[in-house]
Order: sequence, then C-alpha cells, then structure tokens
Amino acid sequence: MEIKMPVCFYFDLPLEADPINSYPIMDKKIGVGVIGYGYWGPNLARNFNETPGFNLKAISDLSQQRLDFAKSRYPSIDVFSNYMDLLNDPEIEAVALSTPTHTHFSIGMAALKAGKHLLVEKPLASSVEQARQLTEEAVKQKKVLLVDHTFIYTGAVRKLRELVEDGSLGKILYYDAVRVNLGLIQQDINVLWDLAIHDLAIMDYVLGAHPRAVSATGLAHPGKHESISYITVFFDDNLIAHVHANWLAPVKVRRTLLGGTNKMVVYDDVEPSEKIKVYDKGISVSSSVEDVYKMLIQYRTGDMHAPHINASEALRTEIEHFHDCIRKGEKPLTDGAAGIRAIQLLEAASLSLKKRGEPIDLNL
Amino acid sequence: MEIKMPVCFYFDLPLEADPINSYPIMDKKIGVGVIGYGYWGPNLARNFNETPGFNLKAISDLSQQRLDFAKSRYPSIDVFSNYMDLLNDPEIEAVALSTPTHTHFSIGMAALKAGKHLLVEKPLASSVEQARQLTEEAVKQKKVLLVDHTFIYTGAVRKLRELVEDGSLGKILYYDAVRVNLGLIQQDINVLWDLAIHDLAIMDYVLGAHPRAVSATGLAHPGKHESISYITVFFDDNLIAHVHANWLAPVKVRRTLLGGTNKMVVYDDVEPSEKIKVYDKGISVSSSVEDVYKMLIQYRTGDMHAPHINASEALRTEIEHFHDCIRKGEKPLTDGAAGIRAIQLLEAASLSLKKRGEPIDLNL
Amino acid sequence: MEIKMPVCFYFDLPLEADPINSYPIMDKKIGVGVIGYGYWGPNLARNFNETPGFNLKAISDLSQQRLDFAKSRYPSIDVFSNYMDLLNDPEIEAVALSTPTHTHFSIGMAALKAGKHLLVEKPLASSVEQARQLTEEAVKQKKVLLVDHTFIYTGAVRKLRELVEDGSLGKILYYDAVRVNLGLIQQDINVLWDLAIHDLAIMDYVLGAHPRAVSATGLAHPGKHESISYITVFFDDNLIAHVHANWLAPVKVRRTLLGGTNKMVVYDDVEPSEKIKVYDKGISVSSSVEDVYKMLIQYRTGDMHAPHINASEALRTEIEHFHDCIRKGEKPLTDGAAGIRAIQLLEAASLSLKKRGEPIDLNL
Amino acid sequence: MEIKMPVCFYFDLPLEADPINSYPIMDKKIGVGVIGYGYWGPNLARNFNETPGFNLKAISDLSQQRLDFAKSRYPSIDVFSNYMDLLNDPEIEAVALSTPTHTHFSIGMAALKAGKHLLVEKPLASSVEQARQLTEEAVKQKKVLLVDHTFIYTGAVRKLRELVEDGSLGKILYYDAVRVNLGLIQQDINVLWDLAIHDLAIMDYVLGAHPRAVSATGLAHPGKHESISYITVFFDDNLIAHVHANWLAPVKVRRTLLGGTNKMVVYDDVEPSEKIKVYDKGISVSSSVEDVYKMLIQYRTGDMHAPHINASEALRTEIEHFHDCIRKGEKPLTDGAAGIRAIQLLEAASLSLKKRGEPIDLNL
Repeated sequence: MEIKMPVCFYFDLPLEADPINSYPIMDKKIGVGVIGYGYWGPNLARNFNETPGFNLKAISDLSQQRLDFAKSRYPSIDVFSNYMDLLNDPEIEAVALSTPTHTHFSIGMAALKAGKHLLVEKPLASSVEQARQLTEEAVKQKKVLLVDHTFIYTGAVRKLRELVEDGSLGKILYYDAVRVNLGLIQQDINVLWDLAIHDLAIMDYVLGAHPRAVSATGLAHPGKHESISYITVFFDDNLIAHVHANWLAPVKVRRTLLGGTNKMVVYDDVEPSEKIKVYDKGISVSSSVEDVYKMLIQYRTGDMHAPHINASEALRTEIEHFHDCIRKGEKPLTDGAAGIRAIQLLEAASLSLKKRGEPIDLNL
Repeated sequence: MEIKMPVCFYFDLPLEADPINSYPIMDKKIGVGVIGYGYWGPNLARNFNETPGFNLKAISDLSQQRLDFAKSRYPSIDVFSNYMDLLNDPEIEAVALSTPTHTHFSIGMAALKAGKHLLVEKPLASSVEQARQLTEEAVKQKKVLLVDHTFIYTGAVRKLRELVEDGSLGKILYYDAVRVNLGLIQQDINVLWDLAIHDLAIMDYVLGAHPRAVSATGLAHPGKHESISYITVFFDDNLIAHVHANWLAPVKVRRTLLGGTNKMVVYDDVEPSEKIKVYDKGISVSSSVEDVYKMLIQYRTGDMHAPHINASEALRTEIEHFHDCIRKGEKPLTDGAAGIRAIQLLEAASLSLKKRGEPIDLNL
Repeated sequence: MEIKMPVCFYFDLPLEADPINSYPIMDKKIGVGVIGYGYWGPNLARNFNETPGFNLKAISDLSQQRLDFAKSRYPSIDVFSNYMDLLNDPEIEAVALSTPTHTHFSIGMAALKAGKHLLVEKPLASSVEQARQLTEEAVKQKKVLLVDHTFIYTGAVRKLRELVEDGSLGKILYYDAVRVNLGLIQQDINVLWDLAIHDLAIMDYVLGAHPRAVSATGLAHPGKHESISYITVFFDDNLIAHVHANWLAPVKVRRTLLGGTNKMVVYDDVEPSEKIKVYDKGISVSSSVEDVYKMLIQYRTGDMHAPHINASEALRTEIEHFHDCIRKGEKPLTDGAAGIRAIQLLEAASLSLKKRGEPIDLNL
Repeated sequence: MEIKMPVCFYFDLPLEADPINSYPIMDKKIGVGVIGYGYWGPNLARNFNETPGFNLKAISDLSQQRLDFAKSRYPSIDVFSNYMDLLNDPEIEAVALSTPTHTHFSIGMAALKAGKHLLVEKPLASSVEQARQLTEEAVKQKKVLLVDHTFIYTGAVRKLRELVEDGSLGKILYYDAVRVNLGLIQQDINVLWDLAIHDLAIMDYVLGAHPRAVSATGLAHPGKHESISYITVFFDDNLIAHVHANWLAPVKVRRTLLGGTNKMVVYDDVEPSEKIKVYDKGISVSSSVEDVYKMLIQYRTGDMHAPHINASEALRTEIEHFHDCIRKGEKPLTDGAAGIRAIQLLEAASLSLKKRGEPIDLNL
C-alpha cells in the first residue's frame, strides 16, 4: 500500500531540512530488536519476523517468563532482561519499544543515542516536553522515529482520509468518535492516554486541520485514573470534533460519524466487512409545514455505498512503512510531530477535565 | 400500568399542599380538545379518541388544510382555527397543546385560566420563568398540568428506573445517552430543545438525583440554531451524565449506557424487542501482568439478561395517567416541576455551549 | 408509483381478450365495502378511507364488538353483521375481503355475482380449483379481481424485480427466503398458507420464471397444522428457490438472498432503512493453492451498494392500483392468475411435505 | 475444560471393549507431526507447538514453498516433502492429517499402521466404508483416532448440548442451521462435505438422537460440485433438523435456531460475545379472536438470557483432549464413530440431492 502524506499539519517542528534522506540503500535485512514483550510486543515481533526486510534479532523484557515464551516462539533470537544489552548489539539497527508509557522517554532516548531507528508504541511519551526531546534527538541522530498510531495504517482510516481529501463529502461539519468497552482500569495511564489517543490521532490524520481549543469532561474517581472521558476539539471555520472514550462500558463500540455538507460517513470498526459506509444524505432546511411531515416520514434521502476496504493487517503495513522510511531516509507518516500533536491534545484535555469542561486554548 | 413516583426530586416548587386532591370523581367521559394538529397532534387526538375515559370534542389549528384532514378522520368533532373558540366550549374540561414551543406559554396560560386541565407537548415553555408561571397557574386553578415527556411512560424507561431503584445495578457511575439521526433543521428550536430534552427528562426520572453543574459544547452555525450538542451533567458523589444529540447524523442511534458498580445496562430504543440489556459485568482493577493478558482476551465476564419489556404505546399510558390524575386529583409523574427541571438544564447547557464548555453551576 | 407488468408468466389462463378494458372512466369516488374486520381489515379500511378515489361506505363482520370498534373509527359508515346486506348496497361497487381463507370462495363468488370488483386477502382461496373459479367469474362479470399479495407493492420488492429485469445481477443462480418468528399457531391454515405464500408470491414476481417441481419438508404435529416448512422450487436452467417459513422461531427474520453470476443481493425486511443491499461479489473458481489462502483471508471482493428504497406503505400503493385498474379496466399486477400460481405451489408443497420431500412435478 | 460424553449415540461400532485404556501414562512430551501445511495445517502446528504436552517434531507437505514457510516459523523442526519420512520417525507418536479429503484414507491408514495416534481433519474420509476401515484399524492398533469436528470443542456448542441435556428447553421440536458465505468453489469436495458437515456434526452432538431419513435439495451445476444445499434430517418423535449450506452467499451467516417446548435458543457464531441467546418463549395455541390481536401486537413473551460462554480457542481444547485421550487411553469425544455418522448423513444427502429431495432412509 502506497503511503501518501496528509496535506496539512498544524504543528511544524522547527527542524533542519529533511535530516535523514541521505541514508544509503542497503541490500541486507535490517536487524531489529523488540523491547517489552507484554501485550503488544508479541504482535510487533510476529510482524517483524514475517516482514522480509527485517531480521528479528532480539527481545528484551523484565519478566523471565515472558522471555521464555518469546524464546519458545523464536528459538534463534537472543533474549535479554536488560534492554541495554539489546541496544549494545551492533547488528541491531532498529528498535521497537512496547514498554509502559512512563519508560518511553528514557529507553527511547537510550535507543536513539545508541544509533537505532525507533518505533514507539503510542503514546510517544508522558508529556509534550518529553515527546519533543525524543523527536529532536531523532533528528540529531538522523534516525527514523515512527510513533505506533496503528489505526492510521488501516484501510478504513486511509479511506476516510481519502473521502475528506478528494472533497466528496463536501465541507466537513463534525467528527464524532466513540471508543468504549469494558477495559482494565490500568495502573499506568488513564482512559485518555489509553483509548482516546487512538481517535485523536485518527482525527488529526483524517481532518488535517489545526485545533484551537479543547473542552473535556469525565469521570475521575479520587485517587484513581480517569476511566470515562468526553473530549470536544474546536477548530477554525465552525468545525468540531468529539471523542467519547470509556473503560466502563458493557459493550464494545468503535464508531465514528463524519458529517459533510454533501455526504456523511459511518466508520464502524467492529463491523467485520463493511467498515465504511458513505451515505448520500445532506441537510435540508425546510420552512414549509407540509415538508416537515414528509421529511419525518421519508427518512432516508439517498443511496448508501460501502466501498471495498483493504483488509491487510495495519501493523504489517506500518512495519513495512518503517522499513521503507529507513531504507529511503524519509519521514514516516506517523512521525514525532504526529506523536507530539496527539499529546498536546491529551494534555489540554486532561487539564480541562479537571476543570469540568473549561475550554483550554491551544497555543500551537 | 401502575405509575409509581420517583423517590427523589431536586426541585421542589414552594407550593401549597396538594392543590388538586379535592377534585370530584366523575362518571361521564372527560371532554377534551387538541390545540395544534401538526406532527404530534394527530397522535394525541388518536389516543384521546381511543381512551375510554376521554371524549374528543374539538381540534384547533391555524391551517384549514389540517382542520379538513382532522375532520375527515373524526367527522363528529368541532374544528376551530381560533383556539379561543375551543377554550370557550364548557364541555371541554381538558386541553392538549401541541403547537410550536414559543406559543406554549400564552396558549397554556389561556387554557388554565379558562379552567382546563392541561397536557403540554415538551418542552413545557421557552424559559424556566415561563414554565414556573404555568406551573403556578395550574396550582392556583387547581388543575392538572402534565408535561408530555413521552419516554417516561415507555416500558423500557420504567424498567431502567426500576433497575436503579431496587439497587441491582449497585452505585451508579455514569449515564450516557446518544440520540442522533438526520433530522430537519427546525426554524423554531435547536437540537437541545428538540432532541436532548428527551434524554435529560429520562435521566432526571431514572437517576432521581440533583444535578450541580452543566458543561456543553456543540455546533452552532452563525445565525442558525445548534444542530449538534454534547452535554455533560455533573452530580454529587462523582456521578456524571452525558447526552449527545445530533440532527446531522446519517444513521439513527437511540442508545443509552448506564453503568453501575454491580451491573451495566444498554437501553437501545431502536431494537425492536430487546430494548434493555442488563450485563453482569463489573470493574476489575488488576495489578498483575498476567491478568492483563487474560482480561483482554476474555472480554465478557458474565451473563447478559434482557428482561421482557411492556410494549404498550407510551402516549396511551400517558393519556390514561392524565385521565387518572384528573379523576383522582393527583399530581402527574411528569408534572410542571419535571418540566421546569428539564428547562433549567437546557438553559444552562445553552449558556455553556456558547462559552465552549465552560461549566455552569445550577443554583436550584 | 407506476406499476409495470413482469415480463413472463408461467400460468396463462385461457380467457377471452382483456375483458374489462371497456369500463368507463368515472368521475365520482368508487364506493367500497370491507368484509371482515379482524386483524387485516382495519388496515384495508384505513387505506380506503384515506385514498381519494374511494369512498368507504360499509364494513361487515360477524362480531358486534368489531363492528362497534369500526363504527367508533368511522362514524359515518354502515356496519353489517351479514355480508349480504353489504353486497346488496348498490352504491358499493368494490369489495375487499379479509375473512378466514376458507370463506374466500363463497363470499368472493357472491361479491362477484353481485357485480362488485373484488380485492381478496391472500391466499385467494383454499384450492387451485376454487381460485380458478373465482378468476373465471371475475372475467365473466368483467370485474377486477386483485389478490392482496401485499409485498409485491413494496418499494423493496419492486427494486428486487428491477435488479433481475435489467440484468445487473447476471444470470440468477438461486433465490433463498427466510420468514420466521414466534407466531400464533392458527386454527384455520398452516404456516405454508400463512407465511410461505408471501415468499412464493414475491419469488414468482421477482423471478418471472416457470417452476417445474417442488420438494418440501416440515414439522407437522399429528392432528395439527404444519408450523415449520422448508420448500424447494425447481426451475429450468439450473435455477432453484428455497423458502423457510417457521412459526416457532424466537426471533423475527425476514431475509432473502438472491445470487447472480455478476452480483448478489440481500433483502432484509426487518432493516429499517437499508432493506436492499447489492454486493459486487461474484464467484471465483480457483485451482491454485495460493489463491485459496488469499481468498479465504480477503473475504469481501467488491463494494456494496444500498439503493434508496421508496418507503410508501405497500397497501396504499396496492389500493391505488386497485382503483386505477377499476377506472381503466385493466388487469391488476396481482391478478387471479398470480393467486392461482401461488396456490399451485402451496398444494404441491403440502403434498411433498407429507411425503418427506418427495419431489412433485408441476403440470402447469 | 472437562469433556463429558453425550448420552446417546445412534451408531455403535461393534468393537471390542475399550481397546486403548491400557495405554501407559508417560512423563515426557508426545512427539507429533503435521501432514499437510495448507490452510488448516498452520493452525494445527501452532496449537501443538503451544500445548505443553506435545512436542512438534515435523511437518510434511508436497509444496517446498509451504515447507520453507513452516521452517521459518519453527526453525527447529524437520520438514519432509514425503509424508512417509515423517511416519518413519520413531519419536513421532502422533500425527495430525490436514491434507485433501481424498487422501485421508491412504495416509491415515499408513499412519495407523505405523503405530501413530491420529487426528484427522474433517471429513474423516471420502466414504462411510473408508471411515469404517480407518476406525477399525485404530481399534486394531490400539491407537486414538480423533476426527477434527472442531466446533464440538467450542464453548458455545457445549453450552447448546448442556441446555438440551439438562431439559431446560423442554422437548426439542426442531434444529435449524444456516452456514453461508462467499466461499471458494473447491475442486476437491462440494459444499456438503465442506460446510454442511460442520452442522451435521454439531447436530449429532447436541441432539444425541438417531436420524431415520434424509431429504436434500441443492444446486449442482453440470460437471461441477454442489455449491448450495438444503438438508432435512428426520428423527423419531416428530423431530426434524435442517441445514442450509451455501458457498455463493454475499454475507456470512452462522446461525442456528433450536426450538423446544419450554425455551428456544439462537446460536449465532458471528456474534463476538453473545453467541448463545436463550429465549423464554413458548407456543401459545389460541382460539379466541381477541387473543389473536393481542398476540400479534405483544410479540415477545418472556425474558432473554445470554449465558457467559467460554471463549477458549476450540482447536486448543481439542488438541488438549487429544493429548488426554492418548495419555489415559480413552476414546475421544469426536471419535471414529462420530466421523462415520457424519459421513452417513452426507452420503444420504448427496443421493437425495441428485433425486431432487426424494427421502433416503438411513439403515443404521
């Protein structure tokens, strides 16, 4: 799948001109190590193992049990309980990081300083400041930094972006995402950093617009992390986005509504096949009483179309893109800047949530 | 269906003791007139016509075409283009009002002053102040004032209330309602007063709790009414409610999630039969890494139960309740106070929406 | 909605050339009476009352309670407990019959002999022989005979027919209909004559093909009517149709699959809006092992399209068509021949069912 | 998960008393080889690799490409293009066979004669005669023969069996299964042997009843395999079962209805969480006209209950059961007799299908 860059970014890191485009094309496979083999690490390892351009060399984890499990799947790799041992292997040129969020900064900095290309599970770091330093270090080291905003690499989200970009929806009026299910109350991060970040990253990619302010509310039990959040993002030109993320819901919902003046879209990630439905429905402002009755009875006003969606595994596409970026010396689609933008929204939302919805301006 | 009163109201009108309980029991049918025969009026007329205790006597509307239509259905009734003619009929003891919201106050006051019992389509009036005056006038006239919060009379909402009241859900954590579809951009009122009011009224009845503040965001095109709104209502004891109302959605969603510490409920009004689903799911806070994996794989943690729901038409139940209240001289379930509470929330939400989510305290 | 005739009928009654086309165009409304005011009669009466070309004059039913109910709705009509009184009214030119099936023949014959146009609830009669006599009597009396195969007048079924007729599905491979729910075990007729007839009539209209044989199985408790039936209809050219009708199902299913060599259709009548979905999916015969894996992983192979469906009430469309046929002296779309064809299939299926699926040739 | 044997089998192979119960308990892992690494083989290999009691030793396949793929996943195993080399390895005590159906007999016989325990992908063989010989050879060799009727090992099917067995459904009236999707027109076998066998095996296990006759219809293009089939199975005591299997459907349906006199069940395997729904619905035979109206309006008559279903991977449960049977010398739940019973139904259905539904008696 060819990766096209979105047309507009609201954050532009004041960096030197493309720092990594002089990277030589290599013939041999890129040696890669995975740090953190908990929930997400096995998916990273499997995809690296099955992607021809990579050679999975090592896995590190604090738990010996997880290392034994990794070794049983990949008998030929090295396993380390200390990630520094992995970073010290000169044959490992790239590292994927899937450890708890609060460790991303220190391990990520160590990896970059050790001269490794870096793929980091979302969120990139625990704060905008940390994310910015990681991004700058990657530039300094001339290494690729890819943030694992996995959904950006799904066929469905790319189709959403395409529908916005080619103008077929008309002017976008709103973006509304719901991501709820019965999740684990995590010790490390709250529902914003765990679930809402997915939709904020998708929204950033699909809309390609510059947010101006954030208002958020939610449920924060004293002494515990937020488990429900409602985030409104205000853009220019009367566009709004809303994300509802909830760990305490009895059913799994993954549904995004995207309304334009010409057409409207439902993106339902729980649907096995028709994930994207485009409705030929618009807005009719009626002043006639008779029209009111007619409209209320005749609900649907046009056809619905569900385009065929590429069903490739998103993480595979992402890892192939990581490979291409390393080979060609290019910036990834989900680069450090994308990681920073997501965290800027999270920080503003967290602040607003504590103030019961008070709007927080984004000074970007 | 027997009507039980909710246990708690956060608004208590400083009225004299039950003003209408001295009303005599009558043997003959109650003469009733319907003012406004647009979208909702025909439903009111049909139910009055088919409810044994009422005698549909007259309908008034400004449109001669609507009156002709009414007359073709009910050849024996009187039709009036001036509602005052209807109010002057001494055989009409009760009036149902289904005219545009901004006329509720003046026509409603006229009806009460003419000594009629009054059923008013939601919202009760255009402001808290108007709603309060109508309520006080009903007390003064010793007449029944019923606000047509129709959903309160559905089997599904009554079951929700029952589940909260009998403690089977545990402590309530959150209430989350979505009511979206492609609606008509109305000239008269915005999406809060048209759609969100339904959920605010249901929430008021089901939770029976005292709201403390409101934060709302939404989409308000300049010079037009709001067509999308997100409303968070803050209660004491860390309880929150959220309502998403949207006229610009390509699909119809009517779904409420209600989370308790013991069980969680989905109320889906679009479902033809299983409108209420009770999930035996709770919250598990895990600190063990292995539990994390297990939890994420084993998603459902208990049984689901969909109780049988009474499928009687809500409006019929409501009109029978209106009849009983007139006969017995009792306050209806959805009385003037309920109408006022809903409008208090709408006014606070409208104000917050204009301030991009700034929380508005409710001084109730 | 304009009514087009299907291109092919497998049954052609040997009648004289169009016997009713000399009927004069009348200016005044057609007086109509409804015989049988049980479950379906009120729908007929309501639609006649609201269709401008008809004047609902009278209703007859054996039950005084039903007549009282009818009178309360339509105070100006006559009500009769003896249908002959209704037939004797010279101002009644057309009659709709919604009595139990076994009475259709005698009452229908009386109505035709009294010179009335006749609309008969499905099934037209209790046997092919009776249906044939009714059809012939209508020809003899030069009256319109319309069989109330209501679904033929829905927007969804007309769209199905259109998709077959214009060739967009390619060659039709199969027709598969499921119509199940928890129904009442009726005293009068079994599930074939109650439910399966709907799908056999739709199949007849949509395919426009000549059936050659029928095999049916089912559940027939001794001394009771069949409550489950599976009917296979064999056509020429390797086309088959299957109908599953079941009164003992816990859920309501109304789903038809229609497979063509180019495209495939799902018609789901329970869906509120997208009743017809056209899938751009074909058949791929693969001999390569690698293709097998690819196909099984990449399930969807094309887009899906849900055309906008006319949501008018089918019975209204049918009654307007009845009116037009009377006015213009034309044969209705669902004429006596259509009624006979449906009963031929029911009789063959009933016989096969008793013989545990033994195929019954249709000598049509 | 503990495996309980069903109470009743309609086929009892005239074998000697339990021939394998003298097998010694071993401490070391059981060496296992997989023959056939096409679509299903990788799932078998993965589960053997991850089940502690087994040691995956070798994989054989005719395709070098598939062997390379296997080796990349499991670098330490042996790979063979000739399955005899695998069978000659004395450290391999058990073999799983996932080759095309027509090869099951010859390879399976070779494996048993080589003294291997045998797990065979469904269907066990190409004919009852072959299946019987394989079963007898397993008895003779005192080896475990397990037929891979995978669904029997799902939590959902085990729950279905439990509901039938404990009498909570009442007397079973019917079993109705639909298994349709857009599949590949296979070169090797038709839709009966590919899809319908799943439901026949589930039906056999869940009902535990003795079928008496079969009627089947379907679509068989000349010179090609059947791609659509409708199979009715007749049991004693007025019980029927029906299976609809279709490779040419645009949507994936996996739904079974199971009707009892007390309760009814929907088993929907496409549902992510609530796969089994138990409806507290019965049959009401009404003779009153008024009841008819009431019944038709008040559709649901009781609660619905969705029990929590064990979500373990079925193949893992099956392979652990294979292990336990080898260790303890016990007959598996899906033994040779179950494999034979399924093929008896397939053979009868194939014959009936060619005769357009003529019923075929089963002489079992």
